[in-house]
Parts: sequence; C-alpha cells; structure tokens
Amino acid sequence: MFLSLLPITAWLKSYNHSKFGQDATAAFIVTMLLIPQSLAYALVAGVPPEVGLYSSILPLILYAIFGTSSSLSVGPVAVASLMTASSLANVAEQGTASYLTGAITLALLSGIILLGMGMMKLGKITNLLSHPVISGFISASGIIIALSQLKHIMGISAHGDNVVSQIISMSESITEINLYTLAVGLSVILFLLLAKRYAKSFFMALKLPETYAAPLAKTAPIMGVLVSIIVVYLFDLQSHGVAITGSIPAGLPQFGLSLPSLSLLQELTLPALMISIIGYVESISVGKTLGAKRGEKVKPNQELIGLGAANLASGFSGGFPVTGGFSRSVVNFDAGAVTQMASVMTAIGILIASLFLTPILYFLPKATLAATIIVAVSGLVDFSILKKTWHFSRNDFYAAFSTIAITLLLGVEIGVASGVILSILLRLSHSSEPHIAEVGLIEGTEHFRNVQRHTVKTFPHLLSLRLDESIFFANSAFLEEKIMSTVQNRPGIQHIIIQCNSISEIDYSALEMLESLNQQLLEKSIKLSLSEVKGPVMDKLKESDFIEHLTGDVYLTHYQAFKTLS
Amino acid sequence: MFLSLLPITAWLKSYNHSKFGQDATAAFIVTMLLIPQSLAYALVAGVPPEVGLYSSILPLILYAIFGTSSSLSVGPVAVASLMTASSLANVAEQGTASYLTGAITLALLSGIILLGMGMMKLGKITNLLSHPVISGFISASGIIIALSQLKHIMGISAHGDNVVSQIISMSESITEINLYTLAVGLSVILFLLLAKRYAKSFFMALKLPETYAAPLAKTAPIMGVLVSIIVVYLFDLQSHGVAITGSIPAGLPQFGLSLPSLSLLQELTLPALMISIIGYVESISVGKTLGAKRGEKVKPNQELIGLGAANLASGFSGGFPVTGGFSRSVVNFDAGAVTQMASVMTAIGILIASLFLTPILYFLPKATLAATIIVAVSGLVDFSILKKTWHFSRNDFYAAFSTIAITLLLGVEIGVASGVILSILLRLSHSSEPHIAEVGLIEGTEHFRNVQRHTVKTFPHLLSLRLDESIFFANSAFLEEKIMSTVQNRPGIQHIIIQCNSISEIDYSALEMLESLNQQLLEKSIKLSLSEVKGPVMDKLKESDFIEHLTGDVYLTHYQAFKTLS
Repeated sequence: MFLSLLPITAWLKSYNHSKFGQDATAAFIVTMLLIPQSLAYALVAGVPPEVGLYSSILPLILYAIFGTSSSLSVGPVAVASLMTASSLANVAEQGTASYLTGAITLALLSGIILLGMGMMKLGKITNLLSHPVISGFISASGIIIALSQLKHIMGISAHGDNVVSQIISMSESITEINLYTLAVGLSVILFLLLAKRYAKSFFMALKLPETYAAPLAKTAPIMGVLVSIIVVYLFDLQSHGVAITGSIPAGLPQFGLSLPSLSLLQELTLPALMISIIGYVESISVGKTLGAKRGEKVKPNQELIGLGAANLASGFSGGFPVTGGFSRSVVNFDAGAVTQMASVMTAIGILIASLFLTPILYFLPKATLAATIIVAVSGLVDFSILKKTWHFSRNDFYAAFSTIAITLLLGVEIGVASGVILSILLRLSHSSEPHIAEVGLIEGTEHFRNVQRHTVKTFPHLLSLRLDESIFFANSAFLEEKIMSTVQNRPGIQHIIIQCNSISEIDYSALEMLESLNQQLLEKSIKLSLSEVKGPVMDKLKESDFIEHLTGDVYLTHYQAFKTLS
Repeated sequence: MFLSLLPITAWLKSYNHSKFGQDATAAFIVTMLLIPQSLAYALVAGVPPEVGLYSSILPLILYAIFGTSSSLSVGPVAVASLMTASSLANVAEQGTASYLTGAITLALLSGIILLGMGMMKLGKITNLLSHPVISGFISASGIIIALSQLKHIMGISAHGDNVVSQIISMSESITEINLYTLAVGLSVILFLLLAKRYAKSFFMALKLPETYAAPLAKTAPIMGVLVSIIVVYLFDLQSHGVAITGSIPAGLPQFGLSLPSLSLLQELTLPALMISIIGYVESISVGKTLGAKRGEKVKPNQELIGLGAANLASGFSGGFPVTGGFSRSVVNFDAGAVTQMASVMTAIGILIASLFLTPILYFLPKATLAATIIVAVSGLVDFSILKKTWHFSRNDFYAAFSTIAITLLLGVEIGVASGVILSILLRLSHSSEPHIAEVGLIEGTEHFRNVQRHTVKTFPHLLSLRLDESIFFANSAFLEEKIMSTVQNRPGIQHIIIQCNSISEIDYSALEMLESLNQQLLEKSIKLSLSEVKGPVMDKLKESDFIEHLTGDVYLTHYQAFKTLS
C-alpha cells in the first residue's frame, strides 16, 4: 500500500547506467527547452520571471517521486498559466506582491485539491469533459495567449478582459509601436517557424542520427534566446525602447508559507479547482498517449497525487500552478527519457540556471519570450473539430462551438464550465427522447426488426416494442407518454411486449413510471409483458413488487413472448 | 396557431348549463379552501395577507385563458411561498416596502421566465428532476414550512436561515410562550386533523352524497377560521397577547408596475428561475395526473405559457409567485370542476372576499393560519422515498438523501440545485462504467449470452463482446481501457467482435476512441469487427471514415460474425 503510493520505488530498483545515459540526454534537451518556456509562461501568468524558474525545480522532483509516467514533463504550461492570470485578474494588479501571493495560493490550493481528488479516487473526473469541449477550449486558449503576447512583440501596452477588448485596446495604441521591438519579435518568430520546419533536416544533414536530430531541433527557442540576448547587448537595443527582462534575482527559491487570507482562499478555490481539472486532463491525456507507445501503465488516481504533490511543492517554493505539458513531454519522450530520473536531472539543470545564468538573461528581450509563446501556442489552435463534428454529431458541434465562443468572449473559466454543462445537458436531452421501435418478426427466423425498416410479421392485438436505451428519470416521462399515445391511437391492442435487451439500468423514477404504465394499461384491459430483461435489471425489479403487479409475464426471449401471445 | 395558444376557445365553445353547475359547485368549495390558504401562504412568504388574496384573483383568470388543465387550481402554494421567503431573506427585511417589491418582482420574473420557456418549447425541462429529488425536496420543504409556523402557534418570535438555527432560536424564547395563542393553535390543529379523518363520514352521515361530502370535508380550514375569529372576538383574546391578522385593506388589487432596480433583477433572476421550475414541476405533475383520470391532454409547453401568464398577472396586480397547487387541484377535481370556468368563478369568489370579507378577518388569529399551514404541509412530508430507494437504487437514495439534508441545513435553492446536479452526475458516473459482457453462442441457437452466466461456445482466438450502453464522452475511455487490458491479459486473440445492438448513439469522443482502439489493435495484429449496428448509428459511422479504416467487417447479426470468424 505504502509502496504503491511511491512509484519511485518501482523504477529506482531496476535503474542502471544505460538508463542514466538516456535520461541525461533527454534532461539536457528538456532543460534547454524549459529555460525559455518557464520564463515565457511566467510572462503569460503575469508573475516575475524567476517564479517560472522556481516552478520548474521542486515540482519536477516531487512528480518524479509520486507520478507514474516516465516521460511526463511537469512544469509551467501555457493553458494553466493563462488560467492563473485570468483567475487573478480581479484579485490584484499584476506586478504587486498580492498578485504573486495569489499565484502561489493557486498552486497550493491546486495541490490540495489534486491530492484530495487522488485520495478520493476521482481520477475518472476527466469523463466529464468531452473531446470536442477540450479541443475547443484549448484552441480558444491558444488564441487568447497569442493575442496577449502581441503587445510585447509590438512594444505597446494593452489591456482587456477578453479578446474583443484586447484587440480594441491594441488598435488604440497601434501608433506607439516600437520598430526595434517589432524587428526582434518578428525575427524570432520567423526563426522559430523555420526551425520548426527545417531544423531536424539541418541536424540530420550534419550527420546526426535522427534520434538526436529530432529532439535537438526542439531546442530552437534557447538559440533564439541566446542570439537575441547577444543582439540586444551588442546594439544596445534597450536604449531604443526594447523591453528587456532585467535583473532576475539569482539563487534558490525561498521556502516558506505565509498563510493566505480566508477571503483570498474563498475567491481562489473555484479557479484553483478548474486549473486543477484542466491541468490534470492535459497531463493525463499526454501521459496516457505516451505510455501506450511503450506499454507503460499510467494510473489516473496516482497521477492526481503526483500532480498534487508537484503543485504543493510549487506553492511552497514560491511558484505558480504546474502540470504535465503536452509538447514538452513529447520532446522528453522523443529525446529518450526512460524513467522519472530525467525529470530529476531537468530540475537540477534549471537549478543551475537559476543559480548562475540569471545575469545572462538580463538582456533577454520580452519580445523574444513573446515570440516563443506565440509559436508554441500556434500549435494548440486547431478548429478542425468544428468541421469534424458538424456532420458527425451536431450536439458535439454545439458544445465545441459554444466552448470556443464563450472562452473567447467571456473568459476561460466560464468557457470551459459552460462547455462541460452544455455537453452534459445535450447528452441528457438526447437520452431523454430515446428511440422506441415497433418491431415485428422476420418470418422464418427468431429475429425482430423495426416495422418501418423491414417486412415483418405483426398482429393487430399485439404491440411489440423495443426500447433502445436504459430508462431513468430523464426519459421515463417520454416513454410513458409515447406508449400511452400509441395505445390511444390504436384500439384493439390487448398485449404490449417490451423487448428490454438494450435496457441496462432502471432507476427509481423509471420504476414508478413502469408501475403507473402497468396500472393505466390495466384500466384499458391491456396486459404488459417484458422480454429479454438483463440479469442485473431483473434482480433489481425483483427487489420491488413490480413483477408481482405486472399484468403480463416476463419472457426469456422476445420470440417466446411473441409466440405465446400471438 | 393563434387559437392553439388560447385553450379557452376550445372549452368555451362547448360550454353549457350542466357544466356551469358542476364548475360553480367546485368553485364554491375551492374558494372556501383558498381564502384561508391564500392568507396562510402570504404568512409563509412573509408578505401582507391581502397579497395572498391578490395572488388568487387575476392569475386564476389568466390561467383559465392560457392553461390546458381543466382542474388545476392556480394560486399561492406552500413550496413556492417558502422559496419566495427564502429568496428574499437576503434582499430585504420582512414587512418593508422593498420586501414586497421583491416578492412582486419574483412573480414578474417567473412570469417572463415561464413564458420564455414555453415559447422555446422547454416543457421537457422537468426531465432534469428525478422523482427521488423532487420527493426529497418537497418533504424537506414541508418540514421547513411547518417549523417556520411553530412560532406563530406558540406566540413567540424566532429567526434563522435553516432548520437548526430556527430550532435554537425557538428554544431560546421558549419561556415566552403565550398560552392563549398555544391553545388556539393546538385546538385548530386538533380540529383539522379530526376533520381530515372524520369530516367526510360526518357529512355522509348527514345523508349528503359522497360526491359532495368529500369536497365539503376539505373546507374544514374555513370552519376553523370562522370559529377562531368568533372565539377571539368574544373572549377578547387579542388583549391576552394572541396575535391577530389586523386590518386588511379592503378592495381590489392596484394595478401597476414600478420598475425594479437592475441590481434587484440580477439578484432575483436565479431564484425566480428556480421558483419557476419547481412550480412548473409541481403544477404539471398534478395536471397530468388529474388529466389522465379523464383522458384530458395536458400540454407541457402550453402549461408553461399558462403559468407564465398567471405569474405576470400576479406581479402586475401586486401578488407573489403562484402555481398549480397539488392538494387544492385535487379538491377542485373531486368537487367536479369540468372546465377552467371553475377557476374563473373561484377568482370571482376571492374578489368578493377581498371586497367585503376583510373586516371579518380582522380578528383572525395568526395561530389559526399557522395551524392550517402545519396540517396542510404535514401531508407533504414523506420520507418513505429513502426506504424505497435504499434497496432499489442506491444512487437514487443518495440523491434523495442529499437533497433532504442540504435543503434542511443549507436552504431550499441550494438543496434542490445540489439534488439535480448530484442525480445527473451519478447518472453520468453510472453510465461511465457500462457493463461489458463477454458473450458466447448457446449451441443449437443463434443466441449469445454472457459467458459468466451461461454455458456457451467460445473460441480462444475470438473475443466476442456485448456493450450494454451507448458510447459517449463519459464512458469511451473506460471501454478502450477495458478492451485493451483484456487483450493484454489474453494473448492469442485474433478477432474482436463487438455486438452493438445496445448502442443507440455514438458521439465524437466515442468515434475518436474507436479509431484509436482500431489502430492499437492493428498494431497487435488483432482485427476489430462490429455486429448488429443499429441503422442510425451505422448512418453516422458512414459519415466518418471509420468504416474504411476498420480492420474487420460489419456484420448484420452477431451469429454471422461469429460463424464467419470462427
């Protein structure tokens, strides 16, 4: 029991030199990627750059101890950073101490929430989110993040709660564009786009084997960072108005915990819950996808504990909410990470960077970070879900579309919440009017088919129905009404047989409906019979006295019922 | 179209003397019942007594024009009155003008909401509420209402947001009990309980036919009112501390509409929505139940319009939210109401009472009204739902129990909302782990049954599965995992056939899962086939390219698939 809470004991036992080599390579590449990403996502979240670095040390080690995925790269990610900024928008002004306290509180709350969900084995909470809702939400978040960085690329200031007000605010200060900043920003974007396309081929042309070329190609952002630092330094661009990162306090994160106020906790609990759930969904999806590729079992409830521990660690060491990022985990996997040791070594890499590299980062232009973010999140934006769902499932289309529209116009929390609620309500609404087929016998067989689709044998005194869904509170009224109105319109019916092979559950509302249906039919001298009732459903019905009251019988097969009553 | 919006045109066309006689009798009895009830529910809602009367005039006439049930008695009811008081608790102090404005605003908002829902044909919104949640909510409301009236019976004052604080507050002032008040209250309770039990037999012993005796027995409350007025007057009980109703302004309700403030509208919209939905559920249930008894069709969407019009009318004439009450409608039906004309005549009865009877009501003790309420709502309290659901459906039990507990401890709005959310989540959670049976052939037949329950023929290279539920976002991950882990544990499988006869819907998340499952099985050289796919589902799958990618085939019957692949 205790050991199962510590996945580290499993992978550490069989650890060896060869694995160490693979993990070290992966750790080096991920560190190169994570340095600019942690600074950039700190920018997205609205916290000082060092907070991004702090969020990339201890959380990685804690996840390595408690998490089950060997390739997940935990740390700051785009969507969680956006949600952090959005949660704190009404709490404090960016740049203030209370804003930072808010970010740290979000990490702590997320940690507590995730640990709590893990202990309550709520790993299947992801079931609440349909793919179209997640996909729509991530695309919309990508747009919001990219848009929020445009101001850094142009060297202007802009504000706004949503996409529309952001665009208006930017267009108002469009005349104040700083051309030096714009040049830096656009150059980096161009470089990163070219690298995305050609870097791998470039390294392979240098005779590097593909296994190294592909991950190395992903380190383009750090190249962009280094080159732009040098350019800024050499050409003294900051005196031409190019905003730079400035001095980052070197050293280790300060441990500690100043208790947040009760009102802050109240205000941030719901946002923290949403950050936790969304972060968990992102993390578990990539963990499972990568795990499937090497037959590794990623355990949902243990992942909650791993991410919970990581977030608690982030909060205690002055960081903001973290989770397993999609693209970085793929790089980690591709670069050959075979155990969680890769994460531990990445953490050491970032630790070294925090101790020694911060002076170098002084001249790092914010436009470079913004360019890194824009290119990174451009991969998140994919509206093909709208086209794919339009024909296949209109309800999924509505859910995806409303998630996108509401996220863009009203914000991330309300966007994802409304998507979840809408997809649940649409699902409920769908199953509230289930398909009821009148069936007849295909002569010469024991099979029954829809009378509207096949030529089948029926009898006027016998109404033979197949219900295509479990009966529960949301559809029992509909079924009762449908059957009673059929009976009203077709005098002469003496028997109704309901084929129950699709009914896998009957709740109490449905039981009451069946009792009332049986009674109403009795008053019209019509007998109600059931056929092909599944074992578990029959067990349940026997708990009640419905079977005793039933005017007809329960038959093993519909054919038997049909034969007997015709 | 226009006429269908006016059900009155249908029943008025065939109106005649005999119907008039029946309706008039029913109207007389309901008026006798409604006078004390309207005063009593005004007390529950915390508004002046005349507001109860005003809510019982115009709304009845509007419902008669727009509503479809011939026997529904619209007006103040217990639960909606409680919800009114609870919605306004944080808005204004009882007895103030702004409290009354709040109550009127609730009626207007309810009217708008119900009309809107009617126009959007949202009549099936009742599907969101399961019977156990409704039953639990009504029982808990009954307790809260009864408890809130105890102070009037004892002549003490008490406050409190929930049941616990009410009880504490009452026990603190228990020493201040006014014995005269208590004597009046207990006598009326005793009288009403005896009347409930024996009044019908009493009237029948007087040789009245049962059709009159039963409804007449229901007029006991007005007897209680009259006798206690006389007693108070004769013995000058108000000078002994018995609280009386006091002067009620005689006359017609004032029409008019002072526009409520925007902040008030914002604060009351959600409560008004909940009052509307709960009121509609109560009304439509009793309407349908009574309608079924005489083959009358109650139309859900038209009922929304009828109740919406009634609430608008209530608000415009200074009243509070109304709906079709359960017990009063039964009395109306039993007393012989055959058309909505009974409601119109009841409205006239209450109008006459408002004009001429208010001086008489001056001496009416509040304890009598409280006693009337307590006896009336005692019929609502029925916890048998807990016992009934415990064995039949544990999820329904949890839903009912939490609705009761949260309603009692945290209040009516949060109680019913949490019940609805919990029942939806439990339903979703149930269908997120659907039953998957491995099936085999019953030799000599074409039928397949669960290998764990029956002796059936199987082949080691052929995995034959039956899914017992539609596949959608909440269960697709579970199904994928279940199938892949079965494959992992049972090497040698070459074919998987999924029997799809219980699958009536596949959403986009499920489609993606099937694509991924197909791909993962392909990598293990296992072919995936489907059998007995329903028409609508097959049509959908053909919209995607899943069928092209499918490694196996789609078979009309599971038997065919089994034969071919074995």
